[in-house]
Amino acid sequence: MGYSIITSAHINQLISIVGNKYVLFDEESLDKYSHDETEDFKFYPEVVVLPRTPEEISAILKICNKENIPLTPRGAGTGLSGGALPINKGILLSMERFNEILEIDERNLQATVEPGVITQVFQEAVKQKGLFYPPDPASKGSCFLGGNIAENSGGPKAVKYGVTKDYVLNLEVVLPNGEIVWTGANVLKNSTGYNLTQLIVGSEGTLGVVTKAVFRLLPHPKFDLLMLVPFYSAAEACAAVADIFKAGVIPSGIEFMERDALVWGSNHLGDSSIAIPENIEAHLLIEVDGNDLDVLYKDCETINKVLENYNCDEILFADDAVQKDKLWKIRRVVGEAVKTKSIYKEEDTVVPRAELPVLLKGVKRIGKEYGFKSVCYGHAGDGNLHVNIIKDNMTDEAWNNELPKAIREIFKLCVDLKGTVSGEHGIGLVQKEYMDIPFNETMIKLQKDIKNLFDPNNILNPNKIFLK
Amino acid sequence: MGYSIITSAHINQLISIVGNKYVLFDEESLDKYSHDETEDFKFYPEVVVLPRTPEEISAILKICNKENIPLTPRGAGTGLSGGALPINKGILLSMERFNEILEIDERNLQATVEPGVITQVFQEAVKQKGLFYPPDPASKGSCFLGGNIAENSGGPKAVKYGVTKDYVLNLEVVLPNGEIVWTGANVLKNSTGYNLTQLIVGSEGTLGVVTKAVFRLLPHPKFDLLMLVPFYSAAEACAAVADIFKAGVIPSGIEFMERDALVWGSNHLGDSSIAIPENIEAHLLIEVDGNDLDVLYKDCETINKVLENYNCDEILFADDAVQKDKLWKIRRVVGEAVKTKSIYKEEDTVVPRAELPVLLKGVKRIGKEYGFKSVCYGHAGDGNLHVNIIKDNMTDEAWNNELPKAIREIFKLCVDLKGTVSGEHGIGLVQKEYMDIPFNETMIKLQKDIKNLFDPNNILNPNKIFLK
Repeated sequence: MGYSIITSAHINQLISIVGNKYVLFDEESLDKYSHDETEDFKFYPEVVVLPRTPEEISAILKICNKENIPLTPRGAGTGLSGGALPINKGILLSMERFNEILEIDERNLQATVEPGVITQVFQEAVKQKGLFYPPDPASKGSCFLGGNIAENSGGPKAVKYGVTKDYVLNLEVVLPNGEIVWTGANVLKNSTGYNLTQLIVGSEGTLGVVTKAVFRLLPHPKFDLLMLVPFYSAAEACAAVADIFKAGVIPSGIEFMERDALVWGSNHLGDSSIAIPENIEAHLLIEVDGNDLDVLYKDCETINKVLENYNCDEILFADDAVQKDKLWKIRRVVGEAVKTKSIYKEEDTVVPRAELPVLLKGVKRIGKEYGFKSVCYGHAGDGNLHVNIIKDNMTDEAWNNELPKAIREIFKLCVDLKGTVSGEHGIGLVQKEYMDIPFNETMIKLQKDIKNLFDPNNILNPNKIFLK
Repeated sequence: MGYSIITSAHINQLISIVGNKYVLFDEESLDKYSHDETEDFKFYPEVVVLPRTPEEISAILKICNKENIPLTPRGAGTGLSGGALPINKGILLSMERFNEILEIDERNLQATVEPGVITQVFQEAVKQKGLFYPPDPASKGSCFLGGNIAENSGGPKAVKYGVTKDYVLNLEVVLPNGEIVWTGANVLKNSTGYNLTQLIVGSEGTLGVVTKAVFRLLPHPKFDLLMLVPFYSAAEACAAVADIFKAGVIPSGIEFMERDALVWGSNHLGDSSIAIPENIEAHLLIEVDGNDLDVLYKDCETINKVLENYNCDEILFADDAVQKDKLWKIRRVVGEAVKTKSIYKEEDTVVPRAELPVLLKGVKRIGKEYGFKSVCYGHAGDGNLHVNIIKDNMTDEAWNNELPKAIREIFKLCVDLKGTVSGEHGIGLVQKEYMDIPFNETMIKLQKDIKNLFDPNNILNPNKIFLK
């Protein structure tokens, strides 16, 4: 589909809306906004616009519709599926100036925020009032809440507390046609019409531009404890996960790391303080939280009892803040560490949690067959395994032509196990060729029809999620 | 819109699909399926069909499309918004034969069920395996899980555990065109395409017929404690609710009952064992649950401390099963009790919880202005107040012509307080005239366009939710 090329007349229109300072088209700016954290992709927009109000976005979208110009909304650019890449050129709409926490409502345990607020900044602001916003993607120090909403982000605490969608009560959205709407109400229960709030969450900026979000909050748990458990067998580490839940404990985090993930993460941070014994194949990082320390120690005992049935090395028990912080930092940096080691692809597989050992075994079998190495880690409590495929010394031919077949096999395995192809990263650009695995033609058509309903001129983040 | 009248040829087609025994059109059957629990409405279908498989439903819907026949799906007929009323005649599709729990997956804490399973039957089945399915509408002893999905039902435990939508992972749905699809995957995290699962939940049987549901489950909490707190002021009872949360306790239930609600409920059960002192205006029924009794006693102490700031009479503390059961039974029977006393209308108002006192005061003020009495009760922890408007000796003229204006004022107040017009009952037939209060034209059009996308011939539960 041919879009218009942006002219100086368009640029002048944009300037008249947001001001001179917030319309960028110098080379450096275009470069800066040409990529996110997805592999090494670069797509240059024609112009970058930094609006400050929903009304400005509305005016911009009206121009896009009239002039047939594609617009790609962008948060902090930490995405891993290419959702913020302006693959059809046009306008890159950066939401970075929407960076205010508008209200923390302690009476109702709710907060109203703009989408350009950094997740961790928000978490810390509500924590100061004794409140808790659980979703915490690995990139929480830099990612935006708006990006989290777009991708329905998770993170380690999802296993106990749910994902972004479970905290979104209401959204202010600029629709592709420029109309500004609220999708719901600021309430915990809502049976009033179709759930358009949840339709927008996870829609990757293809149905509207979120300009305000109302989140529900929880009282902040007073304590947490953390343990790092080394396993001689990665399959056993996976298998232990479901057993811990069966024992009646819901950890606030239960992360799986293959040996290499922990090693690379530690090295990346220059931290050699964690001994990783020979022959250890994988680790579980297990956190429990709550308001009563005695109960948490009991939870840890219960977990220990479960682990006695498995072949583990000595458990590292972290109950001081420094030690806990260090372990989480290592876990969080793994993705970045892998990136510096080799060209790679990350697949965000997800299955019912008890199927994790089967999935891991399958990934390794497929790797052997196609000749690739993988480093796996992720949120084992949710069955959400990040499979990092390492290029290493694979030929370009194998990487470009054979690997997609291997990935297809991995995703088919996920779906056979009643899982799907993305747990928390979204489909964006890089997974769209695999959408036929979880969905039949009818389901894809329904979704595309919804896209078409919201955005008949296909100007908002076009050609994402769906192949064509 | 004119629909076709059902002919004997249609009846024969239906019989060829589901069998003679499951196509009913005798007077008694038509009468039985002509009403749900919404006021005293009666709408007679032309024929009642009881399918057993998705394929049968698919075949029936194909006929409906071809022949322009409306079809209304129905669960147990316990709905309070008229969603299951066949207001355009045609086929009433009863889901009662879809009554099997297909799998309780203890490894993954999930269950796959058919929509005709009674909510309480399901809860008890999973409880036997130590598992917990929290949503428990007052009608749990008779309502179907499918109806709960259609209306996104809540119940007392929603305040801690969320509503039906928070437990639905995946749905098998027969679309209006007869295609059978699965909407998602059996996973806790999912960022794969638009969330059609959540679009179906709460869509009141207007977008598809749910034929299987995969729910997530929790480990069953081991203990609970219950307290009944009498307040001299109903406004104070409402105000105490937000304070309990602020003190860091999340009760597993926190129910508000005006004096009459408790009195009528007790009387309806013929139970006079609960003393209700003179001048008591309202009660809170507060439950805490968890795995550690000491912690629960501590929670109760915290709650007691909060209540010291309010003007309460003696707290009834229930820690044995008989007493607890009795209190919950009284709470659950209030709706039924009101029904036997007078012609009534129930409004399912919902606001952020700290706004409850304002809402209650507003309801009483509007009642005075329009000359009606109301009995209010509901899920105070969620800000979900059921306003039962009693006809008593109001004239028919006032009831039919003036009351809708009063209801409109109540709902306007809800929306002004950032709430909405239905917390858990749905819009169905009886609230559709109020949809313009929470939604502007754009939002209503978007929803109707989605309906039209799924059901272009408008044959599936037509003329619900939206006015025209």
